[in-house]
Amino acid sequence: MLESLKKQVLEANLALPKYGLVTFTWGNVSGINKEAGLVVIKPSGVPYEELTIEDLVVLDLEGNIVEGDLKPSSDTPTHLVLYRNFPDIGGIVHTHSPWATGWAQAGKPIHSLGTTQADYFYGTVPCTRRMTEAEIQGEYELETGNVIVETFEGIDPMQIPSVLVHSHAPFNWGKDPNEAVHNAVVLEEVAKMNFHTYQINPEIQTMDQALLDKHYLRKHGGNAYYGQMQSERIK
Amino acid sequence: MLESLKKQVLEANLALPKYGLVTFTWGNVSGINKEAGLVVIKPSGVPYEELTIEDLVVLDLEGNIVEGDLKPSSDTPTHLVLYRNFPDIGGIVHTHSPWATGWAQAGKPIHSLGTTQADYFYGTVPCTRRMTEAEIQGEYELETGNVIVETFEGIDPMQIPSVLVHSHAPFNWGKDPNEAVHNAVVLEEVAKMNFHTYQINPEIQTMDQALLDKHYLRKHGGNAYYGQMQSERIK
Amino acid sequence: MLESLKKQVLEANLALPKYGLVTFTWGNVSGINKEAGLVVIKPSGVPYEELTIEDLVVLDLEGNIVEGDLKPSSDTPTHLVLYRNFPDIGGIVHTHSPWATGWAQAGKPIHSLGTTQADYFYGTVPCTRRMTEAEIQGEYELETGNVIVETFEGIDPMQIPSVLVHSHAPFNWGKDPNEAVHNAVVLEEVAKMNFHTYQINPEIQTMDQALLDKHYLRKHGGNAYYGQMQSERIK
Amino acid sequence: MLESLKKQVLEANLALPKYGLVTFTWGNVSGINKEAGLVVIKPSGVPYEELTIEDLVVLDLEGNIVEGDLKPSSDTPTHLVLYRNFPDIGGIVHTHSPWATGWAQAGKPIHSLGTTQADYFYGTVPCTRRMTEAEIQGEYELETGNVIVETFEGIDPMQIPSVLVHSHAPFNWGKDPNEAVHNAVVLEEVAKMNFHTYQINPEIQTMDQALLDKHYLRKHGGNAYYGQMQSERIK
Repeated sequence: MLESLKKQVLEANLALPKYGLVTFTWGNVSGINKEAGLVVIKPSGVPYEELTIEDLVVLDLEGNIVEGDLKPSSDTPTHLVLYRNFPDIGGIVHTHSPWATGWAQAGKPIHSLGTTQADYFYGTVPCTRRMTEAEIQGEYELETGNVIVETFEGIDPMQIPSVLVHSHAPFNWGKDPNEAVHNAVVLEEVAKMNFHTYQINPEIQTMDQALLDKHYLRKHGGNAYYGQMQSERIK
Repeated sequence: MLESLKKQVLEANLALPKYGLVTFTWGNVSGINKEAGLVVIKPSGVPYEELTIEDLVVLDLEGNIVEGDLKPSSDTPTHLVLYRNFPDIGGIVHTHSPWATGWAQAGKPIHSLGTTQADYFYGTVPCTRRMTEAEIQGEYELETGNVIVETFEGIDPMQIPSVLVHSHAPFNWGKDPNEAVHNAVVLEEVAKMNFHTYQINPEIQTMDQALLDKHYLRKHGGNAYYGQMQSERIK
Repeated sequence: MLESLKKQVLEANLALPKYGLVTFTWGNVSGINKEAGLVVIKPSGVPYEELTIEDLVVLDLEGNIVEGDLKPSSDTPTHLVLYRNFPDIGGIVHTHSPWATGWAQAGKPIHSLGTTQADYFYGTVPCTRRMTEAEIQGEYELETGNVIVETFEGIDPMQIPSVLVHSHAPFNWGKDPNEAVHNAVVLEEVAKMNFHTYQINPEIQTMDQALLDKHYLRKHGGNAYYGQMQSERIK
Repeated sequence: MLESLKKQVLEANLALPKYGLVTFTWGNVSGINKEAGLVVIKPSGVPYEELTIEDLVVLDLEGNIVEGDLKPSSDTPTHLVLYRNFPDIGGIVHTHSPWATGWAQAGKPIHSLGTTQADYFYGTVPCTRRMTEAEIQGEYELETGNVIVETFEGIDPMQIPSVLVHSHAPFNWGKDPNEAVHNAVVLEEVAKMNFHTYQINPEIQTMDQALLDKHYLRKHGGNAYYGQMQSERIK
């Protein structure tokens, strides 16, 4: 069942250590089959080097386990909230990648300072508010999803495919698990570049809106002209 | 004698260069067999690439060599003080890993700014006071252990499994040598992330206590629900 | 046609990931055959690991495709402006290498602080002004070339073989594609070193002119004495 | 002739890229046979991956080439000044390693902030003054050696085996070429750690003299007790 999606989810999970996004098992990827209404996700606490396709867990959108012998990632309720509220996304990645986590711990959004970010994000990557004590002590992982959804009021999650969770770390998504990993790599690069930019010039303003429009729209939407056909994600 | 422990100690020592925690031979790992009251430790000044199980030194808790042809690590008296005073620990790691050493040289503790730290440390990783001239000129390595023990008055060393020694570098521990290395890796990652966080936002406060409780306790103690059974250390 | 140049351009493109200058496909290299008036450039959006010599695109200096089945890099008009205006250059590299991009995003030039830079750049690597809304919304990639040319009024592009494009990233060039990549590597190293130097000493002044002259001229021009004959680029 | 020394010099040169101390060919190692009064040094501008034992150049202390078909490193006169003035040293390394070069460009010495430095350097690693225009325009490489010697008035070069040349980069030495490379690696690590320490705590003072004495003297001199016999350099 869902063999193609499981293969994508397995490959996307294995890409996390390959891209240097995770230490130990600090990350997880899921993917969704929208017709079936089923999500495939990494099991909790299994090292990447031991992870096999049989270890993956299949759940419905309410969190009922449909297939799999292992417990799903403890972050599963967060993933499910995002799939329920962001209907266009097809894959989600959570990591503690160090540069993006540095910004999340600082409670600061990542503003657009250059075309690297503009090629993938149509504006600022926001940081959530701190969660309340009630949220933390209640259904914590579900509430983590809720505070992300709250942060995206008025923002199209397909145009800003990442968020920083305050005092925690980033979540990223995309049209499929592979694109979600791709966006996680970009966020980490941008988090690093922007850190250095502010150290060099603390007064720097965000990039011009016209330049942001130009770069985002030459790669996304009906007027895109970047890349060969059917490979609009790559540069 | 103690073949299983020696194997663990050898593997843990060899993990130090693998995780990028050491330059040359700047680090050592030991482990204890509590029933026998014996400690296995790396010999002094032997490069990791040449280290074999026969090179390891076995001592009792008073520092008498029970087995081994080589001199034990010059830091051995520090390890022994920790084993005598922290009865729950089973392995100790000392390195000069660069990010954590940056904080130790600065004489600053590493406060909890996010869930990465909270998953492993139930609060601040402290930094010792500067040692006195008398301590340095006396039994220096033993006094290094004593100043660590003094620093942990009122702190459970199993909840805060690392310390920064002022003007020196970190010591880390755990229930066994492997877990001690694991904690050393986490400390290095957190030391790096927190460095960047304070540069981004010098005004940042420590994370909320409720969030610290949530993350630490979902992985430690009777109510833990992270990971599969028998693998509570991994995420 | 142009087999030798194509081979150089392919190798120079493949050198970008090898030197850590690119994430994904964030970079491209071109080379020119001046007698033929033809430019060879990487196609848009093709991953380096899949790139073959047949994928390369050949254009004339007006941008007409002479050979190749794929769309050329979207940055091609920028390359062509540079070839038309800087007649001595034989190869061009564009990347989003992270340290140099940090400076470009900050809108700050890279001044000469030491001999590492002076061995390759005869003074400051400039940063362009911000582009105007009209330039961005017009023929953007061509105007990017124009703003670079404007920045080099009074500067010999063979003596300063790199530029930072404001809110974007560096372009580098050289007498051939290989030298252009070489200069891109140097710029990235210097961008990193200078970042740290200003953090250590914000008051530091540029290096003495005599030292800049000495190092640049012992490697370039008629009185050069560095290296073996026919290898003046290497140290 | 001098086969053993040539082998040491070749291995030490090849260690530079292995330890990440050099980009391209930005570094060179030499060694001296004191009885013969002869120095073996890397040729100028030969890439490490092509370097063979036959490429090495042998010179006397006045700079006369005794053996070898290639031009010696352009920094040879600096090496020779150091051998003539520091009679105990047996090998010299020059690199543009990025962290140490960051300090050299800043014109700032590297003070002792912790035991990592104290294990190898008995105090501050000094930075030379800026060279004068006359020195630069005269016998530049020889004058570079002279300004290093001037900087070491009152300092034992065997106790402080490195120097930062202002607006340039480090030189390191030791009892033989291998130890000189070893010290270059340590300097780079310490330059990195100290950079971060000052960012964390700009008010930090140098380490206590008693601790500096303890660490340096437990590894050097008649009362050393670190390591196994005949391996006092390793930890």
